[in-house]
Amino acid sequence: MANFNLMRELKIQTSSKIILLILDGLGGLSVEPGGPTELEAAHTPNFDRLAKQGALGQLIPISPGVTPGSGPAHLALFGYNPVEYDVGRGVLEASGIGLKVYKGDVAARGNFCTLDDDGTIIDRRAGRIATEDAIPVVEKLSTIEIPEVKIDVEHVKEYRFAVVMRGNDLMPDLDDTDPQRTGVPPLPVKALSQGSERSAQLFNEWISKAKDLLASEQRANGLTLRGFSTDPGLPQFADVYGLNAACIAVYPMYRGVSHLVGMQVVNFQGDRPADEFGIAQENWKKYDFFFTHIKKTDSKGEDGDFEGKVAEIEAVDSALPELLALEPDVLAITGDHSTPSRMKVHSWHPVPLLLWAPDTIRSDAQTTFGETNCARGGLGTFPATSLMPLLLAHAGKLEKFGA
Amino acid sequence: MANFNLMRELKIQTSSKIILLILDGLGGLSVEPGGPTELEAAHTPNFDRLAKQGALGQLIPISPGVTPGSGPAHLALFGYNPVEYDVGRGVLEASGIGLKVYKGDVAARGNFCTLDDDGTIIDRRAGRIATEDAIPVVEKLSTIEIPEVKIDVEHVKEYRFAVVMRGNDLMPDLDDTDPQRTGVPPLPVKALSQGSERSAQLFNEWISKAKDLLASEQRANGLTLRGFSTDPGLPQFADVYGLNAACIAVYPMYRGVSHLVGMQVVNFQGDRPADEFGIAQENWKKYDFFFTHIKKTDSKGEDGDFEGKVAEIEAVDSALPELLALEPDVLAITGDHSTPSRMKVHSWHPVPLLLWAPDTIRSDAQTTFGETNCARGGLGTFPATSLMPLLLAHAGKLEKFGA
Repeated sequence: MANFNLMRELKIQTSSKIILLILDGLGGLSVEPGGPTELEAAHTPNFDRLAKQGALGQLIPISPGVTPGSGPAHLALFGYNPVEYDVGRGVLEASGIGLKVYKGDVAARGNFCTLDDDGTIIDRRAGRIATEDAIPVVEKLSTIEIPEVKIDVEHVKEYRFAVVMRGNDLMPDLDDTDPQRTGVPPLPVKALSQGSERSAQLFNEWISKAKDLLASEQRANGLTLRGFSTDPGLPQFADVYGLNAACIAVYPMYRGVSHLVGMQVVNFQGDRPADEFGIAQENWKKYDFFFTHIKKTDSKGEDGDFEGKVAEIEAVDSALPELLALEPDVLAITGDHSTPSRMKVHSWHPVPLLLWAPDTIRSDAQTTFGETNCARGGLGTFPATSLMPLLLAHAGKLEKFGA
Repeated sequence: MANFNLMRELKIQTSSKIILLILDGLGGLSVEPGGPTELEAAHTPNFDRLAKQGALGQLIPISPGVTPGSGPAHLALFGYNPVEYDVGRGVLEASGIGLKVYKGDVAARGNFCTLDDDGTIIDRRAGRIATEDAIPVVEKLSTIEIPEVKIDVEHVKEYRFAVVMRGNDLMPDLDDTDPQRTGVPPLPVKALSQGSERSAQLFNEWISKAKDLLASEQRANGLTLRGFSTDPGLPQFADVYGLNAACIAVYPMYRGVSHLVGMQVVNFQGDRPADEFGIAQENWKKYDFFFTHIKKTDSKGEDGDFEGKVAEIEAVDSALPELLALEPDVLAITGDHSTPSRMKVHSWHPVPLLLWAPDTIRSDAQTTFGETNCARGGLGTFPATSLMPLLLAHAGKLEKFGA
């Protein structure tokens, strides 16, 4: 893990600027032995030019062999050991839409589901109800009142919402109500420790009132809650790294984790790489660190769509000149984990890394950006949690240790 | 180290099968700068084909610069930090021949030695007395009785035996009696802590009775004890990794350490690679993890026999098709440490690793199995304790960490 005490001691303020460009699920696999991966198959003249000038390497997201979810994978990129800093999905979801979660609050991620007459789940995502249809249903939920606590409910996307309960003596040690399959009713909220029994009761009370309010709905007539959690109190970017950091991301989860580490989450329209890079340009003077997140590489990987993932990678490469025109001092292009389209899921494979820093990089012998070259790259293969110190160093933001 | 709690949390049962093929002391050195190592000099068409399809890397047995003994080196391969899990040689020796050591027992490794008339050691290995000559001597020792404790003695091989003392309040914190040289008498058992004084006394009493019984022996008229230790209570493979694991090894030490981590130690005849691979075949349906250990690569290295080590490596390569015919999902070929024949001893050099997993491996640019290529391999250079999680991942036996 990044040694936060050492970073605090060594960090210095400079005017240099760092861009961390994450292509979600970037790492891939070849379709057949000896063939190219998605990144290797993609036509990426801009990446390749940077690869030639910069240096390549491989990041291990969590530890060898461990496949990360998106939350832990991003925490690792930001320098936090995700095994030590266990951030609940509820907190990530709530934070991602700007719903504040304070120490002692309990946040959960909610899904609307469709129940049949006897209360068993027939669709765990309520027919993927459209956002515009779900918003009024969430508004119903936000009218629920429970004595002694305050409850905030916010819509996230389609069938998803976030709920945060605030009050005294609440505990997040609660089991999910999502049975993870259809044909059975949602589970009650169960306390996983003695201290959390009252919290379980309060959430069950809320669910009971919600059920009454949703009874008349066609599709979203039920709900499940999961990922009960509270503010993990993560060390903040400004304190640890001395960075004034911005998050440019479309999806709530990534915005959530960025908020938790103290980044300013920028609001914007559009979801193409060019839209995100335009926002970086608009905000260029305000921040010294830009976390820019591209989701669709991962989505195409999970769809098993090799060509689609190739196209998303190429779209980022095409838009890159706009980012380069800002003249960042350091630009890292990598992923949070691998999502090989051959496997259709996240995987444990190391993630290709391209580090470019015209003033300070020691370039290696590699000339194109791809997994095979990254495995031979000058930066070597190292834990994702060591990336942040490396970015700071190349930006001249770390002093010498010792005399 | 492999994070056991994380492994326990993420492990899943599948029908996939893993083979960990250890060529003891595999890593080598070239005889002259630029020349090939033993592995590089060997003609290994099967290894090389797998190298082309799979990926290479290097394992660091303990930590950079630290030369391991065989026990710690294997513990590391199995995912246990051998600095944290200190398993005594006595326990390894006893377990290796099926002599059970329970918590609170004290096991020691025994060597017969030859003493002259005034009791000084003139041969530390009793002229490497043959097994058939040593067995009746061990039988004499097993007649010794000491009040309050029970003592089991079993022959191991040639001049070596194991002794286990069982009783109340025994402590293994005892110093070796082997002075590690001739011309001096064996040392008395010395307590290394206050609590172990009674245990020292009991062992000294046993040694005194043994001396009387051995007085008439020609060569094995004395003995030394070392590696006093008790059951370290290692986490078990089934619990930690969810594996039903088999050990196929000829030598007691390797069988012992496998037993201690919860593997089933398979009995069989023969000591050639083909014998061991045949046993894997016979037991293929019963287990999902096969630790297969080849000793002679190390022995030849310790003999300083470069060509002999090359021949042993080639023998394994020749027999390999039998193992591949079983269609394992994951096959790792590596060593526990390096034993360069040029040095004639174990060394700290990283150990070449070949990982093959047709469905999940990300192949690298390397096409033959050897130290130079492994240093450039796609898996990078990493601690041996991370190998197990990597094997599980490639076999689809680990779930995603976090959402």
